[in-house]
Amino acid sequence: MRRILFATAMLFALSASLSFGQGGQAEIKEDFKPSILNQPGQEYPQVNSQGYARFRINAPAADSVRVSLGLGGRGGTKLSKAADGFWMGTTAGPMDEGFHYYNVNIDGGKFNDPGALNYYGSVRWESGIEIPAHDQDFYALKDVPHGNVQQILFPSLSTNTSRRAFVYTPPGYFESTKTRYPVLYLQHGWGEDETAWSNQGRANLIMDNLIAAGKIKPFIIVMTYGMTNEIKFGGIRNFDIKPFQTVLIDELVPYVDKTFRTIAKQEKRAMAGLSMGGMETKTITINRPEVFSHFGLLSGGIYAPVDIKDKTKVKLVFLSCGSKERPDGVKNAATALKEAGFNVVSYISEGTAHEFQTWRRSLYQMAPLLFKD
Amino acid sequence: MRRILFATAMLFALSASLSFGQGGQAEIKEDFKPSILNQPGQEYPQVNSQGYARFRINAPAADSVRVSLGLGGRGGTKLSKAADGFWMGTTAGPMDEGFHYYNVNIDGGKFNDPGALNYYGSVRWESGIEIPAHDQDFYALKDVPHGNVQQILFPSLSTNTSRRAFVYTPPGYFESTKTRYPVLYLQHGWGEDETAWSNQGRANLIMDNLIAAGKIKPFIIVMTYGMTNEIKFGGIRNFDIKPFQTVLIDELVPYVDKTFRTIAKQEKRAMAGLSMGGMETKTITINRPEVFSHFGLLSGGIYAPVDIKDKTKVKLVFLSCGSKERPDGVKNAATALKEAGFNVVSYISEGTAHEFQTWRRSLYQMAPLLFKD
Repeated sequence: MRRILFATAMLFALSASLSFGQGGQAEIKEDFKPSILNQPGQEYPQVNSQGYARFRINAPAADSVRVSLGLGGRGGTKLSKAADGFWMGTTAGPMDEGFHYYNVNIDGGKFNDPGALNYYGSVRWESGIEIPAHDQDFYALKDVPHGNVQQILFPSLSTNTSRRAFVYTPPGYFESTKTRYPVLYLQHGWGEDETAWSNQGRANLIMDNLIAAGKIKPFIIVMTYGMTNEIKFGGIRNFDIKPFQTVLIDELVPYVDKTFRTIAKQEKRAMAGLSMGGMETKTITINRPEVFSHFGLLSGGIYAPVDIKDKTKVKLVFLSCGSKERPDGVKNAATALKEAGFNVVSYISEGTAHEFQTWRRSLYQMAPLLFKD
Repeated sequence: MRRILFATAMLFALSASLSFGQGGQAEIKEDFKPSILNQPGQEYPQVNSQGYARFRINAPAADSVRVSLGLGGRGGTKLSKAADGFWMGTTAGPMDEGFHYYNVNIDGGKFNDPGALNYYGSVRWESGIEIPAHDQDFYALKDVPHGNVQQILFPSLSTNTSRRAFVYTPPGYFESTKTRYPVLYLQHGWGEDETAWSNQGRANLIMDNLIAAGKIKPFIIVMTYGMTNEIKFGGIRNFDIKPFQTVLIDELVPYVDKTFRTIAKQEKRAMAGLSMGGMETKTITINRPEVFSHFGLLSGGIYAPVDIKDKTKVKLVFLSCGSKERPDGVKNAATALKEAGFNVVSYISEGTAHEFQTWRRSLYQMAPLLFKD
């Protein structure tokens, strides 16, 4: 029912655009509310029921204020100075559902919106805004038992420091002293770090809700920094996987198996990643087939059947992306893997691009498929 | 040895100031390095060995850029546009050792420094900078066993939501399944939240280092939001402790005792807080004497002997502040409590004000005194 209502609303928005398309403007509903990712007490940025975002920035003596988010191409949304001295503006159209990074350009310098919370992306802490999604229930904070997300500092000889990871332990982990769990190692994308999956991705809430609904057996998730951000995005071909592979496989996995009640076996270990984290997943699962049995690439490339030497060691290949990315690539790869005899599942997130809503949904789709026997 | 070297350096800095005091300027050493709290890869802000801070902000078309930090009174440090279009400036003198919040004013609007990490203070995420301290070793990230800091979401009937807390579990907590631990409930100040003690305060590293040095027996620390920020600072007299007291005592303490391996007894529970968190500590420990046995007020007021009804239930009162606050108030209160028969320890942090360096040091001094028998 909820989905049907949403589809109707979208159709309406579409036809409204069309009718006003010739020189006019779609009617913007004045039901704006503060984004749920605002800092405490902050009224702006706001979002309306159609997915438009509205910004309000205090910089009375500035000459130009622009927000990177919007539909006007790379220029984003230009704000205008209102009578009260605040700069205001609304996106030219509705934004995609879910989480978006953005920043504010004040007289040529890049800053964050003081109204919004910050999220690490693009190798900097950026402002974040949330466009309510028709399916937001699956990552909502609900009155269910909650797992914990804990920061661990694990010793890394190869990098000569203590490195940080976050570990999601499912509800009940601390009450029991016996139960052991499978583990998913889950990587962020380029420009992000080990905070991304919990903060932007709400991975812990997705898990809590899936577990409460009885849709999955509980497992542990480990998230660490993929060492991806020392390179510029264009230089991705020169990325050397070895330092991170050593940290992950030779240092973090043994530490986690020693410290937490894991099932320390290849059959009960998965690795997945989004975007560049998918590339890391692909490379490491191929290089070290004895470590993981379930592989997930979320907007993060594909496997060809020839990539995987020993089919019998792979229990699942999960491939996904947004419908605004290249869904055919994912679908074709899944077909080829299926024909080659792999257990493969592909998923296309409708109406989303290379952004976190695609990856939240991908985790939600992938989690029930992991560690099934 | 380290302390002696530092003292010499400070004397030198002092005499340099004096010699140039009449119209001239102290010589600023050009050994600036990026603050350790910068965002990855960011060169500015920088700090030199004397404690001066230097800022560099990109906003080529701005008319005025000012940093709130500095010795020039409330105005902070005014930056000047350099030839390359970046705004630069250096504080008028050395800053106090330790952590400082700040923000950047661009043409009348308050933003964060894109070079620095953000910390929640003043009811907003603010930029943070670290002035290296002579005693920074006690809160440094070292090659010792590390405890974890975990986010818990605990059910709160009284506020009808899941509330967040962070729980520090000492090294070894997860390897053992038997050992039970005392618990310190540790509160932030006004304008801050439950992230402050780990982020700004480095409470987990202080504990890790104390435990590794054999200076304390391990205990758990629980940090949650004190609900202090709905009021403006001036309205502190009208603050109603009841909603927070209910959350802390009737919801969080039982949840922690159920979930973690605590020693669930008044003798093994402490409460402490900084600034307004000290006020909360004082009020709650007086209101609910059956819950805590060790009390700590860090720049957060004092107890008079008459405040505490049953002396036999109190194992320790710890009072502290910075030497730039009102140390006499703390010392006099400690004397009065001692004369009245309390086990009281007071501590004055040399050369620091109402800032986190005072509270890091206070935690370091207080922790070994807790749960001694």
